[in-house]
Amino acid sequence: MKNIKIIIEYDGTNYAGWQKQKNAITIQGVIERALEQISGKHTKINGCSRTDAGVHAKAFVASFLTESSIPEDKFKYALNSKLPEDILVLSSEEVPLDFHARYSSKGKTYSYTILNREASIAIGRNYVCHFKKPLDICAMEESYKYLIGTHDFSAFKSSGSSVKNNIRTITDINSKRYEDIIKINISANGFLYNMARIIVGTLFDVGTQKIKPEQIEFIMDSKDRRNAGISAPAKGLCLEKVFY
Amino acid sequence: MKNIKIIIEYDGTNYAGWQKQKNAITIQGVIERALEQISGKHTKINGCSRTDAGVHAKAFVASFLTESSIPEDKFKYALNSKLPEDILVLSSEEVPLDFHARYSSKGKTYSYTILNREASIAIGRNYVCHFKKPLDICAMEESYKYLIGTHDFSAFKSSGSSVKNNIRTITDINSKRYEDIIKINISANGFLYNMARIIVGTLFDVGTQKIKPEQIEFIMDSKDRRNAGISAPAKGLCLEKVFY
Repeated sequence: MKNIKIIIEYDGTNYAGWQKQKNAITIQGVIERALEQISGKHTKINGCSRTDAGVHAKAFVASFLTESSIPEDKFKYALNSKLPEDILVLSSEEVPLDFHARYSSKGKTYSYTILNREASIAIGRNYVCHFKKPLDICAMEESYKYLIGTHDFSAFKSSGSSVKNNIRTITDINSKRYEDIIKINISANGFLYNMARIIVGTLFDVGTQKIKPEQIEFIMDSKDRRNAGISAPAKGLCLEKVFY
Repeated sequence: MKNIKIIIEYDGTNYAGWQKQKNAITIQGVIERALEQISGKHTKINGCSRTDAGVHAKAFVASFLTESSIPEDKFKYALNSKLPEDILVLSSEEVPLDFHARYSSKGKTYSYTILNREASIAIGRNYVCHFKKPLDICAMEESYKYLIGTHDFSAFKSSGSSVKNNIRTITDINSKRYEDIIKINISANGFLYNMARIIVGTLFDVGTQKIKPEQIEFIMDSKDRRNAGISAPAKGLCLEKVFY
């Protein structure tokens, strides 16, 4: 028995998210089918996260136990030969049996990309969230200090999650503007359901002067989802890195 | 009667190119249908170029004659309300009656984007040509001086074109590398059928040392398509700008 860790890049546009579902095409479902084709056996793959429909990943980590005789580094080529072009295995390697893509993870970095201008975009439209009103990036950056650190992020969690402990640590938030594009990077030891997207939705309120940067502290303390902003659209979100 | 000039951005991935065809979905066909919906009358649109299937445009220019009462700048909004999200009208304005998107054009700039590394890519895969062998960009740049200027580009033209005069002037070629991405910009007073893609295909031969930079001169003088490189894949090509 071997434990194989794979790193995957995917364009989530055409998928109902990572997690396997009965009546929808998901990334986990497609990779498990490819793995069955090459190993001859159905094998469950554990993902580092349950990304939503339309969310992308540059370095999603997954792991699976297998008795296949395929050499560790050859899973990459074998899987890619069966996968569609919007899912790409970047690497495959054997890891200790106690490694689990999700439970062994120490943290993750997500990026969120905003096209901030009046006109929409056709080329690359699936990788950005189009936000028309001008965003005051300085005000947004002013608010990061209220988000960074260890907090109860209940206000930044969608309902429908069974997770009980809502305390997480954001280790870093930073943003850059290149012309009309704003890219925000958020690193944390873990993310609650829709947490990254609700943080960005709340930053939209800060960036449009609907709320002041320091009101983030009040929202956090309230632990009430209704005080935070919208859940920003999925297509701007991308899993950049997982830490172990 | 008004002559309206529109500038269009499009993602060519899902289209059989610009030009209207009977049994295929084309960008011209889709825009003409939208124009008919908003103006109530079928109107022929003249495009600046006949981009191939899979080729993109950041600023394609088209023009049409209309008796519609829609104000010149409102065609943009009206058309966008009917167009799919991969075709976007960036501007609309009235121009003199003798303006024609194609015949009035003084030149164009195309970009070609190459992903130059072993691994493929999932995110943004429709906007780059994946080329695995390392490309020597210095050798490629060394060859530009043989392409720039006024030449008979017969060797860089696909058959199937009815154009008789194969003399064109390339006013500039330049390239930049950002990590694994190489972007080549080619400006000319006009492009023969597949000329930009065949130039890039020939630059692949230079960049992999299959031919020396100075052999471009021999290929040009031969006027023989068989001496040039392949026609590089459509998806790396993008119409950047049209000059009038």
